[in-house]
Amino acid sequence: MTEPLFSIPLWADLTAVGLGGVQGALFASGFRGQRRLDLLGVTIIGIIIGMGGGLIRDLLLGVAPATLQTNGYLLTAIAASLVGMLLANVFQRLNRVIVILDALVIGLFGAFGTSKALALGLPLVPAVFVGACSAVGGSVLRDIMMGLPVAIMHVGSLYAVAAGAGCLVLGVLHVFGVEIVVAAIVGITVTTVIRILAVVFDVSLPEQRMLHRRKVAVETAAIPIVPPPAD
Amino acid sequence: MTEPLFSIPLWADLTAVGLGGVQGALFASGFRGQRRLDLLGVTIIGIIIGMGGGLIRDLLLGVAPATLQTNGYLLTAIAASLVGMLLANVFQRLNRVIVILDALVIGLFGAFGTSKALALGLPLVPAVFVGACSAVGGSVLRDIMMGLPVAIMHVGSLYAVAAGAGCLVLGVLHVFGVEIVVAAIVGITVTTVIRILAVVFDVSLPEQRMLHRRKVAVETAAIPIVPPPAD
Amino acid sequence: MTEPLFSIPLWADLTAVGLGGVQGALFASGFRGQRRLDLLGVTIIGIIIGMGGGLIRDLLLGVAPATLQTNGYLLTAIAASLVGMLLANVFQRLNRVIVILDALVIGLFGAFGTSKALALGLPLVPAVFVGACSAVGGSVLRDIMMGLPVAIMHVGSLYAVAAGAGCLVLGVLHVFGVEIVVAAIVGITVTTVIRILAVVFDVSLPEQRMLHRRKVAVETAAIPIVPPPAD
Repeated sequence: MTEPLFSIPLWADLTAVGLGGVQGALFASGFRGQRRLDLLGVTIIGIIIGMGGGLIRDLLLGVAPATLQTNGYLLTAIAASLVGMLLANVFQRLNRVIVILDALVIGLFGAFGTSKALALGLPLVPAVFVGACSAVGGSVLRDIMMGLPVAIMHVGSLYAVAAGAGCLVLGVLHVFGVEIVVAAIVGITVTTVIRILAVVFDVSLPEQRMLHRRKVAVETAAIPIVPPPAD
Repeated sequence: MTEPLFSIPLWADLTAVGLGGVQGALFASGFRGQRRLDLLGVTIIGIIIGMGGGLIRDLLLGVAPATLQTNGYLLTAIAASLVGMLLANVFQRLNRVIVILDALVIGLFGAFGTSKALALGLPLVPAVFVGACSAVGGSVLRDIMMGLPVAIMHVGSLYAVAAGAGCLVLGVLHVFGVEIVVAAIVGITVTTVIRILAVVFDVSLPEQRMLHRRKVAVETAAIPIVPPPAD
Repeated sequence: MTEPLFSIPLWADLTAVGLGGVQGALFASGFRGQRRLDLLGVTIIGIIIGMGGGLIRDLLLGVAPATLQTNGYLLTAIAASLVGMLLANVFQRLNRVIVILDALVIGLFGAFGTSKALALGLPLVPAVFVGACSAVGGSVLRDIMMGLPVAIMHVGSLYAVAAGAGCLVLGVLHVFGVEIVVAAIVGITVTTVIRILAVVFDVSLPEQRMLHRRKVAVETAAIPIVPPPAD
């Protein structure tokens, strides 16, 4: 459980957790109507997005979850969730900021996951896999907890591909002897840029696309209960 | 994996597993109609409620699951599931007993989770988090396996809040030097009382409220497939 | 984390992962219409079926996941998924082959899970439990990720029972001093034969039965949104 090669700086790790918490709470606050989550539900989603990736990473690596060894991570995630909730109305209008933050969070979790896996001695392929799972794991847990179709299965190619590409670049650079901090910065950049370009290229916001396609998924998932009224 | 400060007495641990197994099987047996679970399905839910909390606790703590180190836990959970199934008709009429048992089980799992986390050296905040996850984790797994909306996201504020409050009281008392056994008893009492008062205050049984609100959740979750027939 | 008694031969382990990857990709490719998964989604399901059982086994055992210690497992699972996708049309017509492969995969994962648990010193009951979870865990993860009702809860008695029976036979033979390799072969045979006989006895293919019953499960799960048009 030692990490001789590289340890993620605490400030960077807490930044990722905080950004994830804000993003998760914003996402959860966005659900209106009867399904609207209560205060606790939104906080749970904030914690899941902020800390889920790190937990999944450490479970896959077989080490005790780093985010539970100090008070800082949970306090950061909870505080970030509250910030996300309170500012939800403001942030909902700042969609470009949300997209960029989301892309950055994926990049950070992916890079931290891959780096930690490499530091623990895992070979390239599983290290990239652990990184990709760290990056998208929080959103998978969120979707399962909220009863939504798991996004990466239906709309998520560019989401998961962006995560995987950044982790792969990081891992390959590491194999070629590039210093891990430099490799991590390049990997984070690759993921973030691919993700943002994917959103821009589609000329629609990812939340909207997500909801639109999810709607389609739900419609096709449900077996028609009542036949269309015959004319 | 040593627990110098405190180890949960085996009789207490097995009692929690047994009560959880009965509760899980009663819950699962309550589903009638075409969706009714078969014998194995009810047993699986009994095992999940009886052992899920402990498994999640040990995964979060990064130690080998204690409930899999001896035959006793699984045999207790399976036997309790069978008892729950056979007595389902009787117990369905004893709703007050079920509510009290359920509240007690949440309290027990929360206290054991927090205590074990503190004994392993975790700080206060993650210890309370691990305890709360132990308390509600079984019900989350149950809902995911049964395809139900995850209860703590939609109806569960008082459920999860009761669990969290008891764990927090236990942790704070421990920080102030109160002996862990005393702190655990206070914590279990806090959780159990809050949970029962919440049910009494709402003047309806938790299962009924749960199903009612879940029904609403399912209705709003589903995209209307057929428009209401125009008149 | 040493396995003095028995270590699963790498070729056998990779064979199970490969067969699982093909089976998972075939299953996922079978979904047509708007819900159809994309290339990445099918690959994810292939990886889940090929590697999910082993991951769950090692999480329950509290050891670092063996499938992430070398490049071989993931590369095998990914390659198998691609093979499954490309040959989906061919294999869809070879339903008997699919059924036999599926039954064999359940048997292999169950036997490996039980054997590893026994080798790590777990008693009989938890060792059988870990084996059964290894056998069916991949399909549970698949159903959760794809938003399907979890098969073993609704249609899965004979599926999970076949897995459990094989693991139990393996464990009991081991207790009676039978060499682990022999016990594993007998256990795999028991699971495979029960599973195949169950399919033959029902005189329908498991995929079809599964989808049929799932359809029923979905229908009853959904609250009728629109009342049947009155005549």
